Amino acid sequence: MKTSNSPFPLNAWYAAAYDVEVGRSLLARTICNQKLVLYRQENGAAVALEDACWHRLLPLSMGRLEGDEVVCGYHGLHFNGQGRCTHMPSQETINPAACVRSFPALEKHRFIWIWPGDPALADPALVPDLHWNHDPAWAADGKVIRVACDYRLVIDNLMDLTHETFVHSSSIGNRAVAEAPFVATHGDRTATVTRWMSNIEPPPFWGNQLRAERGYTGLVDRWQIIRFEAPCTVTIDVGVAEAGTGAIPPGGNQGDPALSDRSKGITGRVLNTITPETDKSCHYFWAFARNYNLTEQRLTHQFREGVSGIFREDELVLEAQQRAIDEHPDHEFYNLNIDAGSMWARRLIDGLVAKERPNQGVIPIRRAA
Amino acid sequence: MKTSNSPFPLNAWYAAAYDVEVGRSLLARTICNQKLVLYRQENGAAVALEDACWHRLLPLSMGRLEGDEVVCGYHGLHFNGQGRCTHMPSQETINPAACVRSFPALEKHRFIWIWPGDPALADPALVPDLHWNHDPAWAADGKVIRVACDYRLVIDNLMDLTHETFVHSSSIGNRAVAEAPFVATHGDRTATVTRWMSNIEPPPFWGNQLRAERGYTGLVDRWQIIRFEAPCTVTIDVGVAEAGTGAIPPGGNQGDPALSDRSKGITGRVLNTITPETDKSCHYFWAFARNYNLTEQRLTHQFREGVSGIFREDELVLEAQQRAIDEHPDHEFYNLNIDAGSMWARRLIDGLVAKERPNQGVIPIRRAA
Amino acid sequence: MKTSNSPFPLNAWYAAAYDVEVGRSLLARTICNQKLVLYRQENGAAVALEDACWHRLLPLSMGRLEGDEVVCGYHGLHFNGQGRCTHMPSQETINPAACVRSFPALEKHRFIWIWPGDPALADPALVPDLHWNHDPAWAADGKVIRVACDYRLVIDNLMDLTHETFVHSSSIGNRAVAEAPFVATHGDRTATVTRWMSNIEPPPFWGNQLRAERGYTGLVDRWQIIRFEAPCTVTIDVGVAEAGTGAIPPGGNQGDPALSDRSKGITGRVLNTITPETDKSCHYFWAFARNYNLTEQRLTHQFREGVSGIFREDELVLEAQQRAIDEHPDHEFYNLNIDAGSMWARRLIDGLVAKERPNQGVIPIRRAA
Repeated sequence: MKTSNSPFPLNAWYAAAYDVEVGRSLLARTICNQKLVLYRQENGAAVALEDACWHRLLPLSMGRLEGDEVVCGYHGLHFNGQGRCTHMPSQETINPAACVRSFPALEKHRFIWIWPGDPALADPALVPDLHWNHDPAWAADGKVIRVACDYRLVIDNLMDLTHETFVHSSSIGNRAVAEAPFVATHGDRTATVTRWMSNIEPPPFWGNQLRAERGYTGLVDRWQIIRFEAPCTVTIDVGVAEAGTGAIPPGGNQGDPALSDRSKGITGRVLNTITPETDKSCHYFWAFARNYNLTEQRLTHQFREGVSGIFREDELVLEAQQRAIDEHPDHEFYNLNIDAGSMWARRLIDGLVAKERPNQGVIPIRRAA
Repeated sequence: MKTSNSPFPLNAWYAAAYDVEVGRSLLARTICNQKLVLYRQENGAAVALEDACWHRLLPLSMGRLEGDEVVCGYHGLHFNGQGRCTHMPSQETINPAACVRSFPALEKHRFIWIWPGDPALADPALVPDLHWNHDPAWAADGKVIRVACDYRLVIDNLMDLTHETFVHSSSIGNRAVAEAPFVATHGDRTATVTRWMSNIEPPPFWGNQLRAERGYTGLVDRWQIIRFEAPCTVTIDVGVAEAGTGAIPPGGNQGDPALSDRSKGITGRVLNTITPETDKSCHYFWAFARNYNLTEQRLTHQFREGVSGIFREDELVLEAQQRAIDEHPDHEFYNLNIDAGSMWARRLIDGLVAKERPNQGVIPIRRAA
Repeated sequence: MKTSNSPFPLNAWYAAAYDVEVGRSLLARTICNQKLVLYRQENGAAVALEDACWHRLLPLSMGRLEGDEVVCGYHGLHFNGQGRCTHMPSQETINPAACVRSFPALEKHRFIWIWPGDPALADPALVPDLHWNHDPAWAADGKVIRVACDYRLVIDNLMDLTHETFVHSSSIGNRAVAEAPFVATHGDRTATVTRWMSNIEPPPFWGNQLRAERGYTGLVDRWQIIRFEAPCTVTIDVGVAEAGTGAIPPGGNQGDPALSDRSKGITGRVLNTITPETDKSCHYFWAFARNYNLTEQRLTHQFREGVSGIFREDELVLEAQQRAIDEHPDHEFYNLNIDAGSMWARRLIDGLVAKERPNQGVIPIRRAA
């Protein structure tokens, strides 16, 4: 375990799996450099244990479930959901020190969340808000992909959507995104980037939706309201409306979103939570939710696969970027105007890390002139 | 070559190959971190040379055999069975220093053995006893597999057969093995674990044998007498007999095996010698020998493939264990009662290593309460 | 970039690609540990830029060409052929420091050459002479292969052709090469090995040529005049003539090649330039040129594929040798008589490196008695 220099706080809830991934079998997954075995007890509650037997370190995930306990696949030691050894082969007395680490785990918004840090601090109220993922007023579906990069590169990617113009030109990107102004704001744990685009050609993805749902084929007003919640969750309010029908609130990027009239538009939410696997890899959980045409399964399927293809384009860029960073270990990065949102996200992350580990080195960032 | 911190003695005979693997061609194999080229001279005697030409280090195994000499595949230098260079291209005079290292080699019990340490100490009488492998009173067959783990993990595995219950439940393991008591004893170079199991259900492998050979389908007495000979050979006397027919000697695990009456049983020997390839990989040579129905080739074939499948289950566990050890370099291991045999084996190995290299670090072992 | 200890000078022209490899798309290639993106401007001139965007390090080769500029595939920054950033997304002002490194590049003898060192020293007159590769009096064709070894091992290989006897016995090697005497001479930037072989059996490759071109099947005089030009180009004048017809100049290896009468022979040039990719890998560019039967495309094809097969034999040897060197980092090499040519080549290379980096460690070479 090399967590001392890691670029993430440990005292946070991290999505470890989609709810359906964890059941009555043993799932091995690494979260924040910690190898875990995940399973559900007979009452359905999720359990997360260190994935290494106390005796000879064999991954417990190579064993089997017996009731609420894991049986090691080498010498048959039993461990309960608290990680305590309850049976050893060929001996009556059990060493009281015999246990593996157990991690706080809970289920919310269709994810199993685990807390890699101090269990005493694991407040369920701190799970980030991704309620759209199971709200009956929304239809949502998504995937998890493993990306071979520092999870913060995914955050950077999501906090600046000008990259859509260059990476995703065939689907959601067009010149308008890179050209439109935006506003970046921030709070104690959140950073927000707001970009309203007025009277533009819709990109293919949205143009197709608006035609299908509203029979509308003209210019649109488009919005992207990106909200980061430290350390690793990003929800994006996205959509388009018929141009000039009041979707853009008075004041535009500076205005009050509550004054937006979206009655002539369609709205989606891109839900993202990116869990560090190691310092240089992550599990990227995402879903796309819409609040219209909820029961059309074809649409849900099409969105899931469409977004999946778009994120595949990001994956290629992000992994290449990680390799380049590894080859330039001392590189000092300069920020452009477009990096304002990710810069705030990074500062919030750095603050959480510094609070836990005061001597944690933080990559210096300079701003381009 | 990184032998200084290696977890094995150099002054020992190690099986380098099955007899049939070495012939009139060049075989490359690494033994104890030493790359070797093996071949037979025209008189059949096995030769083991350092596998790197004196001139430009090209592996000699990429060259060819000419009479009793190896010809390098790059510039044609010749080396004889003692490793001395006998020909250089385009020059008359041969540098007297031009030679590669030659290792003591001999053939016994169907293996080619080599001695990686001081040739002056290479006493043929020290080859471990594996005579069942070519004794006409036994029918034996086996294989060699490469396992990506420290050879001592294989020794640990063989010295405690309670793992059969958990790793090999479909063939040779059942609950009886993990529950039966055992006795561990040791000598200067050997350690023995004896486990007699009385009046039990036979596991599938042995039940099938006893039915086929004796027409017997009831409960059995079963035995496992595991004998380790330092540094890396383990022979296991295994078998079952009709329950209560005198196979278990008076005194059971403490009794005298010579007083066992196996006339209503069947006996096998599991022969194992595990040669370090590197610090973290090994060549696992094994054979299974029986002393009944010797000429039934179908049975020999079936045993070889059956045991091969069982050892494949071990291989998965052992390689996972090695990876886990690599990830926890400072882990301190605790021993259970079942580890008594392997603990003695490790001590004998550590003793041999310490004698050769007094400053060799030895992994500390603590015993669980 | 780890060039400080690299075994090659930076102030030299290195072949980066065959002319046909570089066009109106982006080619990624690493030269002397430097990742480059290569392309042609609209006027056909080759450009070589550092392959990492100034902003977030994404390889520019993952972007696209727009006119004479590269557009980064992540955020759309533009860089011109001098490496200067000419456009940034969402901002008017461009940071004047925003640029990537540009390398001197030119096209000559069918290769694109780049100069990784000080641009002020990049004198076009220093491109090595490989004119046979596009001279209408010669028919030439070749390939580029990546070899996983220090480029100097390829130089060693070419400077001593006795290896033909052992590595290429089925094509160009026979006993005569290893047995024939040779002479090695050197200048400031060049080293030459001359070997005339009188009245010998031709090896298959040349025997076949002489029969086809001249209807001659007897003994031959054969020559190999190997010329190294520092740091990494080797041209070899090769051929055979009917024995005793005056091809061998008076004085043989010591004689004046200008006095050779090759009218009863056939001549080829093996052109080689070996560009370091990293310290332990290289791009090996080669071509074979002949000055007879120029328009016979079948012959060009056959030579290219024949030589390609021969060099594949070298590749196996060279990569095995590199692995062996990596396993013996402190090995001290001894030289044989046959190493005279490569020893001079190495000294010339070491001299160039030492001039650039006075403290560069140089591998000591001792000569065998």
